[in-house]
Amino acid sequence: MQFGLKSITMDDIARKVGVSKKTIYQFFSDKNSIVYKSVHEHFSDHRSEIEKVLDNSKDSIEAMYRISKCMKMQVEAINPTVLYDLQRYFPKAYKRFLDFKNTFMRERMKIILENGIKSGYFRKEINPEILIIQRIEQVQLAFNNDIFPRDKFDFKEIHEQLFDHFIHGLLTKKGKEKYNQYLNEEHDA
Amino acid sequence: MQFGLKSITMDDIARKVGVSKKTIYQFFSDKNSIVYKSVHEHFSDHRSEIEKVLDNSKDSIEAMYRISKCMKMQVEAINPTVLYDLQRYFPKAYKRFLDFKNTFMRERMKIILENGIKSGYFRKEINPEILIIQRIEQVQLAFNNDIFPRDKFDFKEIHEQLFDHFIHGLLTKKGKEKYNQYLNEEHDA
Repeated sequence: MQFGLKSITMDDIARKVGVSKKTIYQFFSDKNSIVYKSVHEHFSDHRSEIEKVLDNSKDSIEAMYRISKCMKMQVEAINPTVLYDLQRYFPKAYKRFLDFKNTFMRERMKIILENGIKSGYFRKEINPEILIIQRIEQVQLAFNNDIFPRDKFDFKEIHEQLFDHFIHGLLTKKGKEKYNQYLNEEHDA
Repeated sequence: MQFGLKSITMDDIARKVGVSKKTIYQFFSDKNSIVYKSVHEHFSDHRSEIEKVLDNSKDSIEAMYRISKCMKMQVEAINPTVLYDLQRYFPKAYKRFLDFKNTFMRERMKIILENGIKSGYFRKEINPEILIIQRIEQVQLAFNNDIFPRDKFDFKEIHEQLFDHFIHGLLTKKGKEKYNQYLNEEHDA
């Protein structure tokens, strides 16, 4: 995550872990399988994290806010070249990422939006499926150095702006009151 | 725009225009230069159209609404393979498109948002530059068949959902009243 996947060698990994290359090859056939296993574990952990957030959120607004915070932290921790390397050189691991993003995340976030509509916090005119797909892609867009060059934009501000705008686009009047109340509690906490 | 740029031959063009290939070569050195000239004209026309909309809109809400309608019509008229072909096979023409999208459109739409904040229609917390970049990319996202497969999603609905959500994310209470009033007038017109 820190240095990118392409440039790391089996020697680097052995040195970092403090074992011989021979030992590593007892568990992994090649770098490909280390990358796949790491990516798989990474998104399994992330999945558990998201499930926990959903179980512990008292309403859709809190769930959206906390999941967005998770996504931001995840995104901040990843070197932007990692996804590019995955897509280009590690297709099986990249597919694992796409499954997480396009199946798991879409399904879970769609449910949050549907619940938010039922509670009267989110506008009933919204199409949850379309907006969630757009939201997930938007989180990835903040990664794109051609679109948001890092020397010009502050990563944290992009995320905060996109989340705050996204949720305001969903909220009813009742939802806006709840959101502001939630922000104040978060701020005091 | 209808059949894509890669598969069209000079013979097709000559037949469609009803002149000989020899005549075409008197004006254009090759297909590349026809593509560049067409793309250039296309975005020059689109630029004039946008300028006219800006001149004739009485406030930022109307300007956003009408520009979005322009973008939707433009997007609907273009075969999705065209942009892909441009990027891959006609880099000079693709650059013309990027100039339009990343310089002209960003600048003009940023001004709309800034004016909307001044008028009290758009929330003062928004960062116009970040949100406009995201909005322009979002319009292109609706194109992406991997993200929004055409057999599953209605193009028109994607655009309406994304615009309606985008503007709701900007609006103040005062702005919301103005927007609803504007929609009613549009609907009656």
